[in-house]
This record gives sequence, structure tokens and C-alpha cells, in this order.
Amino acid sequence: MADPSTAPPLTRASVEAAHRLIKPFIHETPVLTNSTLNKLASTPRTPEELAGTEWEGREPAKPVIRFWFKCENFQRGGAFKARGAFHAIERLKREPGWEEGGGREKGVVTHSSGNHAGALSLAALASSLPAHIVMPANASPIKVAAVRDTYRANVTFSGPTAAEREAAAARVVAETGARLVPPYDHPDILLGQGTAALELQEQFARLNREAAAAAAATGGKPPRLDAVITPLSGGGLLSGTALACSPRDGEEDRPGPPIYVFGAEPTLDGADDGRRGLAQGERIAAIGPTRTIADGLRTPVGKVPWTIIHDRKLVRAVYGVSETQIKRALRLVWERMKVVVEPSAVVGLAAALFNEEFRALIEKEGGEDGWDLGVIFSGGNVSLDGLEALFREDSS
Amino acid sequence: MADPSTAPPLTRASVEAAHRLIKPFIHETPVLTNSTLNKLASTPRTPEELAGTEWEGREPAKPVIRFWFKCENFQRGGAFKARGAFHAIERLKREPGWEEGGGREKGVVTHSSGNHAGALSLAALASSLPAHIVMPANASPIKVAAVRDTYRANVTFSGPTAAEREAAAARVVAETGARLVPPYDHPDILLGQGTAALELQEQFARLNREAAAAAAATGGKPPRLDAVITPLSGGGLLSGTALACSPRDGEEDRPGPPIYVFGAEPTLDGADDGRRGLAQGERIAAIGPTRTIADGLRTPVGKVPWTIIHDRKLVRAVYGVSETQIKRALRLVWERMKVVVEPSAVVGLAAALFNEEFRALIEKEGGEDGWDLGVIFSGGNVSLDGLEALFREDSS
Repeated sequence: MADPSTAPPLTRASVEAAHRLIKPFIHETPVLTNSTLNKLASTPRTPEELAGTEWEGREPAKPVIRFWFKCENFQRGGAFKARGAFHAIERLKREPGWEEGGGREKGVVTHSSGNHAGALSLAALASSLPAHIVMPANASPIKVAAVRDTYRANVTFSGPTAAEREAAAARVVAETGARLVPPYDHPDILLGQGTAALELQEQFARLNREAAAAAAATGGKPPRLDAVITPLSGGGLLSGTALACSPRDGEEDRPGPPIYVFGAEPTLDGADDGRRGLAQGERIAAIGPTRTIADGLRTPVGKVPWTIIHDRKLVRAVYGVSETQIKRALRLVWERMKVVVEPSAVVGLAAALFNEEFRALIEKEGGEDGWDLGVIFSGGNVSLDGLEALFREDSS
Repeated sequence: MADPSTAPPLTRASVEAAHRLIKPFIHETPVLTNSTLNKLASTPRTPEELAGTEWEGREPAKPVIRFWFKCENFQRGGAFKARGAFHAIERLKREPGWEEGGGREKGVVTHSSGNHAGALSLAALASSLPAHIVMPANASPIKVAAVRDTYRANVTFSGPTAAEREAAAARVVAETGARLVPPYDHPDILLGQGTAALELQEQFARLNREAAAAAAATGGKPPRLDAVITPLSGGGLLSGTALACSPRDGEEDRPGPPIYVFGAEPTLDGADDGRRGLAQGERIAAIGPTRTIADGLRTPVGKVPWTIIHDRKLVRAVYGVSETQIKRALRLVWERMKVVVEPSAVVGLAAALFNEEFRALIEKEGGEDGWDLGVIFSGGNVSLDGLEALFREDSS
């Protein structure tokens, strides 16, 4: 992976440059809408539903929400991670001296609970580079199989914590000379991940072209994307999205509100380190093992993403959701949208459906017009064996 | 439903007219492609895989197949059935004397194992007509819930055979004066169902516009849809598709092959009545109860569809698939395409992947270029409870 010190600046323009670089390799994934989910999200929750939660006794929020689902579950490799991985590889191939130093033969290495592993293997295979992947021994079997069998990578297993995985990856680097491509804590990765939100903005404009023309003709309010919410784990997707939604150079003083960016996390076993870190004003560098079914969201926010999410204040808030809320959102997406997403993918939707703090904000700022809310479905890699447990609400 | 004697002629032009009538009410569902499935279908099966089948010892076929999946699982109500239902209702509303005779108050009635029930309820609700639905007592709970709760129809249960359902529907007609809208055996229904294949042709042309321009510039072979395969049960979808793919008036002598149309059925417990009927040259009017997991494909081909499928020879062949093949195809679509489809939806794909007779035909006629094959995914209404049984290959 390209040396971070030579990385492009962390700006919207760099996300646009990343997009130009990776476009030949990735899918422009579809943006879907769903009237049933819009209706559900725009219906106030009942006082009974709020009983036993931190919002018990509060007047339920009455937001109006129109969802725009960016379906990265349809991305190559089944997750947005292909964007960062292809960007890292393309940047690496352009690094002065890399090829002459035997970079092609040494290849790349990473550690990942799954989707980044698949994505890097896919991107390495596309450039005929060897890929070494360190995976936690408890990783989803379907993800291990994809990495080893479909993308022909060399798989090594490690313990489940971030520290154990990093140590195992360091050993592979020492043995093979392969270049480390971390899953999220690197400028090239997060710039690549931000391209999904860039496409979402273009697609929103395309899908609303007629409404925009009608508004221009009548002097009405033109359609605009009010906000985007993404899952938060290591922070590559959320921080890249924040850059993609930030103003272009020279447009910082443009009138009107910006596109707000939000994150969502599972609260089980302290996996909501991002939310807690923002509250205390300091990044939480390590979290214990968590049992959340959102198996892509088990790592703490990385250093580089944190500078965007926290220091530069480009993310407005991060919301926590419970396991039951994740399962309900998952079931809605499968049953109503007919789309296969993994549990990690729906935490943003779960926040919009169930988190009263977020819903009250949308009610307050969106008013009667409501908000057009982009939701990034991060991936769809889920094993069909053991599915029943996934939808059984009485298990955590 | 409009009197069949006043129905439009069963031609492609009538399918086009139906499309104009229902366009405001239905979705233009997306057409998806998938390189993994193309590769799989274009890889010869191994002699081991053919062992124990009727093709044991035969040289495996080597077809080249590019799939174009028309995703009616994303249709309103979760299935193509909305097309026929909206068409029936729109035609009914235009029937002279219907409104004056109290048609609006009496509403409509039907019997259906599920998707037609949901579709008719949805279409009736959109026009504020009462809907009475007779469902077999063993219908999928999710479909019953959708009909009763979401679309606010009156549900009556009956025995599972076609005769029991028809008798129950006749009782409702006698009691309420509601107009019977049969699930498939009526011109208005099959003309509506045919609109999916009409859209597929337009979308194929749109998706291949660049390739077509390139072929025109270089004198190469322009892209064309070679064939479409759909599930076959009562025959509304298959016969409507056959009309939609038939030549326009005055274009019967156009050079080049037509778009061939094929059907697919489960073979379990004799559910392949269409295939057997074609072989014996006579429609099989009744079949016993079948345990196939393709629960939308448990009724015999109706009389009106049969005139198109058999008498007018507009369907080239119907292929049978096993329960295991349906489950494998289902798993591939869920895992690789990340799309929720019901078992009935994948029988066409299963035939292309596993039926050596169909594969040998594509090899012979498609040659090295292969075939561009449209596959209609008929619906996506599947209960997430009991999913594991659906994917367990050792159970029938």
C-alpha cells in the first residue's frame, strides 16, 4: 500500500480522484427506494414501543423520511470494501519504485474479519498480485471460503482481537515482504470507500431530474439529499462518506445546509465505541470481544478516520442500535425490499426506524417536508446456514 | 373481470396495449446480470454430476449463456402477478355498465395460493374496490398476512385442490355479487403478465445500446435477446411472455430467428403437467397435491394459456427440474446475487444450469457466441421462518 505520507489530501476532490481511478473495476451499485419502509419510518412509534427504553414516557418523534438505499451488497465481492481495496492497489501500482522493488511478486497482506479480506483478494487477483489474508478463527465460513476458493488468496488464522490480528499480519509481512493494506486506517482506503456516497449523490440527482425540472419551472423547493447514514466500525466508510459529502474546494460558503453525515453502531458489549468516543471527546482505541450479530462492526474506530469524524467535525452524530432493532431492520429489508443484506448493513436503517434521538432531530430539522435520507447498505455477505438464529428476536 | 368474449385478441399488440394501461400502477422492475452465474452456466457439468440422472453417460453439454434476470420479485406486491391484476381491474373499470350495475360496491373475488391473491387485493385497494380472497388453508402465512393485513382483503380458506378453491370462490360470488378474477385462465390476466417480457426486451436494448452502436459501426453481430424462460404453473406468465415475444403484426416474415420462449416446472409429484401435456399433445386438466417447495407452481395449465402454449406453438419447450436443483439455484441467487426470490422464481434458472436437454439445445443453436437468455424471476414472497429447511438439500 502506498506510503501514507504520500497520500492525497483528505478532501472531497481526492474522493473524486479515487472514483476516476477505480471506476473500471467496480460496479455503480443501484440506489433503491421503498414506499413501505418510508411509510413505516414516517409513522411515530407508540408509547408502548418506547416502554423500557431510555425514551420511555417521551412523546414519540414524528419525522417524515424518504429513504435512498445505496446497495453496496450488490458491489463486487458483496460489499463496499471493494472500493477501498481497488483504490489501494491502483495507488500502489503507481508508487515510484514499487514494481522495481519486486512489489508485484511480493504482493499484499491484510487482516480482516471478512469483507475487506474478500475485497483485497479480489483486487489483488485482478492485478495478478499474490494476497495473504489473516482472518480471525471465528470469521464467517462463507467469507473464509470466498477468500480462499473464489479469490485464491493465502489464508492464515489468528485470535479475534485487533491486537492478535495485527501481530499475525506483521509476521506475514516479515516472512514474505508483502505490503500491508490495512482494512480502514489508511487514507487510500477511506478515499476509496467514500466513492459510494459520491455515486449516491449523482444517482439521487439523476433519479430526481424530473422533480428538479418541475421545481425550477414552478419556483418550488428543488429535491436535495439532506443526509447520509452509514455503519461505523473502523471508520473507513463513515469518514470517506463524510469527505464525499463535504463541500468542494471554493464552495465552502455555498448557501443552504450541507449534506449531513451520520454513523450507526451496535450497542451490544460496548461495540458503540465511536458514539462513546465522540461523547467523551477522545477516541476509544480498543474494545473487548463483542457478540453483536453485526459481525462487520466489531472493531474500534481507527486513527485516520477519527481525524475526519471527530477532529474535523465532518460527522454530525453517531447513534447506537440494539440487537433486536438490527434483526427487525434486517427482516424488513429481506421481506419487503427482497434484498439480501448482512446484519452490519442495516444499522443505519435501524437508527432511522428506532432511535428516537435521530428521529426527533429529523422531525425538528426536516419539518413537514421531511428528509431525503441516504442509507448505505454496506454488504450482503451472510451465510444461509444458521439464518433462523439471525431472525429469532429472543436470542441476542 | 371483463367478460372474456369482449377480450382483446391474444397478440403482441394487445400486450403492448395492456402495458400502456397498467404503467401508472406497476414498477418497471430492474434487469440484473451476474458474471458468476454466467460463468457457472457456461461451464459443462461433470460426468459425476450426471450420474444417476437420465443423462448419465452422455457427453455434458457446453453451452455459452449470458443471463438477463428480469426481477419481478421487486414488483409491487412482490410478484409479476400485479401486472395481470391491475390489467384485469383497469379493464373491468372500463366495461360498459359495470359501474352502473353496482360493480364498485360488489368488488372482486378470486382464489389463489398466494401471489395472485396479494396482487388482486393490492389492485383492488388502489381503486377502492372490496376484494374477497379464497386461499388454501396450507398457503404461506406471510402471503395470508399480506392479503389480510396489508391489503385489507376479506380472506376465506378452502381445501388445497383447484376444484375446492373454485367451489369456494363460486360461493363467494353467489353471496356477494363480486366479479370473479381468476388467477391465470383469462385473456386480461395473461396479457397483463406478458408485459414483464415486453419490458425485458426494451431494457435489454437499452442496456446494450453501446454494444449495438459498436456492432453497427464495425459490421459485427448486433446484440439480441435469443430466448426467455419463465416458470410454468397455470400458464398466465408463460403464455403472456410468448405473446410479448411473438412478432408484431406485419413483421411475421422478418428475417432472423424469433425470440424463443421456454417454460420450466418442478417434476415432483407430477407438477410438470405442462411438459407432460405437450409430450402427449393434450392438456392435463388436473394434478394431485404436490409437495414441491415451488409453492407457486402447484396448479395445472389453464385452458386459455394452453391455446397459446400448445395450439399456437408459441412456446418452444418446457423443462422439468428437481427439488434439489431448485434449492441449488435458490441458494445461488440469494448468496451470489444478494436477491430474495421465492423457490418458484428460480425454476427457469435451474433448467439453464442443470437440464442437459436445454443446455444441449443452447450449445447446438448458440454455438460459440452462445445465447443471451432472459430469465423471469417471478416473485420474492418467502417466509423467513423455516428458511433453513428451504436450503437443506437432503430434504425434498
